[in-house]
Amino acid sequence: MKTVAVRNIERANTEVATELGKLGVATVHEAQGRIGLLKPYMRPIYPGARIGGTAVTILAQPGDNWMIHVAIELCQPGDVLVVACTTDNTDGMFGDLLATSAKARGVKGLIIDAGCRDLRDLQEMDFPVWSRAVSAKGTVKNTLGAVNVPVVCAGQVINPGDVVVADDDGVTVVERKITATVLEAGRAREALEEEKRQKLASGVLGIDLYNMRPRLQEHGFEYVDSLADLEA
Amino acid sequence: MKTVAVRNIERANTEVATELGKLGVATVHEAQGRIGLLKPYMRPIYPGARIGGTAVTILAQPGDNWMIHVAIELCQPGDVLVVACTTDNTDGMFGDLLATSAKARGVKGLIIDAGCRDLRDLQEMDFPVWSRAVSAKGTVKNTLGAVNVPVVCAGQVINPGDVVVADDDGVTVVERKITATVLEAGRAREALEEEKRQKLASGVLGIDLYNMRPRLQEHGFEYVDSLADLEA
Amino acid sequence: MKTVAVRNIERANTEVATELGKLGVATVHEAQGRIGLLKPYMRPIYPGARIGGTAVTILAQPGDNWMIHVAIELCQPGDVLVVACTTDNTDGMFGDLLATSAKARGVKGLIIDAGCRDLRDLQEMDFPVWSRAVSAKGTVKNTLGAVNVPVVCAGQVINPGDVVVADDDGVTVVERKITATVLEAGRAREALEEEKRQKLASGVLGIDLYNMRPRLQEHGFEYVDSLADLEA
Amino acid sequence: MKTVAVRNIERANTEVATELGKLGVATVHEAQGRIGLLKPYMRPIYPGARIGGTAVTILAQPGDNWMIHVAIELCQPGDVLVVACTTDNTDGMFGDLLATSAKARGVKGLIIDAGCRDLRDLQEMDFPVWSRAVSAKGTVKNTLGAVNVPVVCAGQVINPGDVVVADDDGVTVVERKITATVLEAGRAREALEEEKRQKLASGVLGIDLYNMRPRLQEHGFEYVDSLADLEA
Amino acid sequence: MKTVAVRNIERANTEVATELGKLGVATVHEAQGRIGLLKPYMRPIYPGARIGGTAVTILAQPGDNWMIHVAIELCQPGDVLVVACTTDNTDGMFGDLLATSAKARGVKGLIIDAGCRDLRDLQEMDFPVWSRAVSAKGTVKNTLGAVNVPVVCAGQVINPGDVVVADDDGVTVVERKITATVLEAGRAREALEEEKRQKLASGVLGIDLYNMRPRLQEHGFEYVDSLADLEA
Amino acid sequence: MKTVAVRNIERANTEVATELGKLGVATVHEAQGRIGLLKPYMRPIYPGARIGGTAVTILAQPGDNWMIHVAIELCQPGDVLVVACTTDNTDGMFGDLLATSAKARGVKGLIIDAGCRDLRDLQEMDFPVWSRAVSAKGTVKNTLGAVNVPVVCAGQVINPGDVVVADDDGVTVVERKITATVLEAGRAREALEEEKRQKLASGVLGIDLYNMRPRLQEHGFEYVDSLADLEA
Repeated sequence: MKTVAVRNIERANTEVATELGKLGVATVHEAQGRIGLLKPYMRPIYPGARIGGTAVTILAQPGDNWMIHVAIELCQPGDVLVVACTTDNTDGMFGDLLATSAKARGVKGLIIDAGCRDLRDLQEMDFPVWSRAVSAKGTVKNTLGAVNVPVVCAGQVINPGDVVVADDDGVTVVERKITATVLEAGRAREALEEEKRQKLASGVLGIDLYNMRPRLQEHGFEYVDSLADLEA
Repeated sequence: MKTVAVRNIERANTEVATELGKLGVATVHEAQGRIGLLKPYMRPIYPGARIGGTAVTILAQPGDNWMIHVAIELCQPGDVLVVACTTDNTDGMFGDLLATSAKARGVKGLIIDAGCRDLRDLQEMDFPVWSRAVSAKGTVKNTLGAVNVPVVCAGQVINPGDVVVADDDGVTVVERKITATVLEAGRAREALEEEKRQKLASGVLGIDLYNMRPRLQEHGFEYVDSLADLEA
Repeated sequence: MKTVAVRNIERANTEVATELGKLGVATVHEAQGRIGLLKPYMRPIYPGARIGGTAVTILAQPGDNWMIHVAIELCQPGDVLVVACTTDNTDGMFGDLLATSAKARGVKGLIIDAGCRDLRDLQEMDFPVWSRAVSAKGTVKNTLGAVNVPVVCAGQVINPGDVVVADDDGVTVVERKITATVLEAGRAREALEEEKRQKLASGVLGIDLYNMRPRLQEHGFEYVDSLADLEA
Repeated sequence: MKTVAVRNIERANTEVATELGKLGVATVHEAQGRIGLLKPYMRPIYPGARIGGTAVTILAQPGDNWMIHVAIELCQPGDVLVVACTTDNTDGMFGDLLATSAKARGVKGLIIDAGCRDLRDLQEMDFPVWSRAVSAKGTVKNTLGAVNVPVVCAGQVINPGDVVVADDDGVTVVERKITATVLEAGRAREALEEEKRQKLASGVLGIDLYNMRPRLQEHGFEYVDSLADLEA
Repeated sequence: MKTVAVRNIERANTEVATELGKLGVATVHEAQGRIGLLKPYMRPIYPGARIGGTAVTILAQPGDNWMIHVAIELCQPGDVLVVACTTDNTDGMFGDLLATSAKARGVKGLIIDAGCRDLRDLQEMDFPVWSRAVSAKGTVKNTLGAVNVPVVCAGQVINPGDVVVADDDGVTVVERKITATVLEAGRAREALEEEKRQKLASGVLGIDLYNMRPRLQEHGFEYVDSLADLEA
Repeated sequence: MKTVAVRNIERANTEVATELGKLGVATVHEAQGRIGLLKPYMRPIYPGARIGGTAVTILAQPGDNWMIHVAIELCQPGDVLVVACTTDNTDGMFGDLLATSAKARGVKGLIIDAGCRDLRDLQEMDFPVWSRAVSAKGTVKNTLGAVNVPVVCAGQVINPGDVVVADDDGVTVVERKITATVLEAGRAREALEEEKRQKLASGVLGIDLYNMRPRLQEHGFEYVDSLADLEA
């Protein structure tokens, strides 16, 4: 591994990132064609947070948070810290001190494929975290990793400067170059969903709204009157 | 697999189902002789919900929510959607649009041995879900399953029309034919527990309340004064 | 296994235990040299609780809570029940009745490497529990275990009388003999952290506060201007 | 739970069971319409075994093998023991003594949704086992379960007398009433596969053999010449 | 954590350790009263090995095998290396070079609650390993741990000098002071089992051999003739 | 997701791939700086296989093997099929028919982040597979994915044409452009290891061979004579 930090990265537009955050994970994930979703073991440490920001990426060694300290210097307002790990690890690499420092740099939150601690403090200071675990396990600063290189975090490639969107549904990444397109598609989808929502609320069935009956028939799907008919 | 939907099912009595819901999962599970509990990986997406309703069952393919759309047409007020999957899967098969539609039919909630999304919306609209995962992963509508057939959901057989009870402790199923009996037994148990609770609160020990001392002795259980005695 | 209960145990000082509880898991774990932390699968059943107390230990058989009833008689105000299991098990060994009884004895909470149930009641009565699972699965009282013997709970040795500290970050144990020393170290650490927190909040970087730059250089860590430089 | 043993069960035909065993799990599972497969955590304790037999079912409590002793009396030559558990458990409920006894009754093997031990002995005596775990953990005989009732084992309903087929690919169940039909369908499938195998071995592509090209086109699948075209 | 190595440890008798190894894990675990078994995720990297030796213990940091190098110097013929980790980790901390070195010191094998690599080489040189994972993940030598201190390995306390027994069934530990007693009990058990085995092989039922019928009846266990009777 | 197949990919040199295969996973992973290793849940379906080949990549939907059929047409001798999945899935997407077809194209083996079946046949025809699961679960051909696009498989980015090396230790990927360099580094490492192996076999300690004593001292590592000293 190249043990290196990249000082300057091309970031997606911060406003676009913020707007993507408002759309939320499910809409953004769908709007870009059902890609980009991190594995569902990534969960928020408290409910209700919703963010969109530009990724500053970190590749950390298990049980070692040295690189997070290095990364914070390279953060700008609107960034989100993204920590991948060279191997599966749940140690508490991030707590209230790092959050205080990150917040002072304008960082919006943290995505970490490892553990996080000081939950009470993080919630009080409104610094949201999505992690694979909560753990108070202390970490060292002994082994080098890398900052602002492409990483695989919870199953997805995240490049520095990509947009990360996170809410109660999980985390998704949007490649930097397509963020504007995805935002547009997401808004269109949201408008469309609002329309559908109203129809469904009024009692229209999805099976009719999406015109599923002919395709069900074509695939040989059958309706029977009762379980008894089925067993017959 | 027979790819089929059963239109008419025999449902347990809706009021009985509602009353079982009020007793809660632990009481109902015990009242029917410690059976019917779904595996504990089934967790509510937000705390505090408590329901009892009649099952409309769905057997879905991984990553495919086609059958849920089919099932909603067959729902009645007081029903609970129960989704089993042909293989382990965590994709977000259910979100706010399906919930809107289900709610319009009077459905009380969802039990899904897969993933769920749009948590914020579902909580705002007060549509409770118990799932094995939260995931925004989008699904397709390409492969047939079945509706209103017996399924195995999180380790338990659930037949259409059975009663499903769910709260913060998890989910349990009660076979349709025995719902009235179980309700009676549950109420008796609840009364009995209230009595015990008062005694225990007043300082009576469980070891005395349940008369455990003779049986401990009979099994050869010993008391020693200190750890030192034990090692001697 | 010796099937036995030890009546008298040497407990750590209750006030020290309470004070350790106020410091919280992360601080206590660090203050004693990063030891004592239980595996992170031990999670609180509701957020916000924070306790420190003296351990009354229980070794239970899977699906059997007989020994918990035996243990409660041996509890004193300020104690915390600690349940280990002879094999991995998630059954709901503890619910509102046992909590009522424990509370009547002055017990502060429960640490259980198995399941717990009656979440709503436990939260209402403010009896906190840290467990590996929530499950309504009923248990029997058929097989003997032991009470107040040393146990391994979620990966840590816990001796009767040791201090157990638990909060939203998890659970840690402090050996009885070193509790006073750890309390002192924890308070010193807390003071030190407050100082650091203020510096970090004011914009001082951790990389400077901890003087990391020379050590990074010594280990061969490099900075490059852009990803393009990296690939070159 | 009814704590009961059913003495007389209707068994599928033993020869049909044996023949289904020869077809193997994958063929039988497909031949009956992709149903009946137990979850893939069920693995053989040694490679190479392949059996088909009639199920004698057991519902056991965690850490307790009492019911297996009860079941063996009810076994006949050609049977397979099928152990489900009331809760997830990995204890070593079965070892060489029980295998000796089962073998003396003509039992062909064991399917157990728990643990198994004495691997060396079991392999030497050629008594195959499919289990969720290998564990020497000793068990007790304290809590009643049931024998020859319908059970859910590793996610599938298994009724006493059903046929269980197991090999290196896992375990599948065939309902008693349809065993003859499935055997016929399995043999037809096997013949058909042999034909396909020869064509594929000679270099015919599956995409042609299954005439996939028109359907790919219809679904909008595209071919591009190079990754560069894709990114353009 | 004290970062320290203990040079001189009191070892159990080597011959006793070897004899315990011959008895095997299941027998030894039972002979000492069903204690000492490591969690069943500890599996041999190849089948057929069976060892008993005296523990040299290691507490390692995740992704770091420095302490194993330190430990090998302290090994004697008949020892078994036992590696615990400060946090869950699967990295390949041990491979053919360390095995070569350990073998040169007369070490019988390795128990590691982490990963292992170079499987082909280890099998060829007949150096058995029980691990939680196989992984080629390279490790560093940057963070101190400890050697020959008491550790918790896969859920069990192991003290330096204790006997570790491992075979295809898993791993068990025997406290140094009771090894002779356990050996005696194990041999007695083995003799008794041989007797039982012959009876069972001849067709005597366990239910009779263990005189279970009266106790079944006393617990209310029922026999019915058919499933139909059960449902009636 | 773009549902597309890329016809022409730039492959690493086949001979280099073969030679990397001979070096084995551990050596190649180390030689490129401890990168490229797939998660350790990827295990061979039978022991002893060792391959190195050029990746033809597949992105499949859960429970659907359509894209594997598409991919085989694009394979050349020396290729290895690499299947990633859009979501975690264990279904048996690959069996003896696909292996027959792949083998007819000169494919060396399969890496699949899902399930595999027909183990007996695959071993007999010597077609090695590394998978996350063995499962006979049948799959459909209903939903499009992609072929020869970059994928994330078991935590690693794999580009079409990269070299994949797999043996009993797991699977590692080498980027196409650096394969020659890594081969050279791997051979150098192998030579160096042979030298070390001989020294270690002759009794030289790793602690001396790697000159660890000064660094241990510098880090404050202590030696004590006995556990008693430690507790003092």
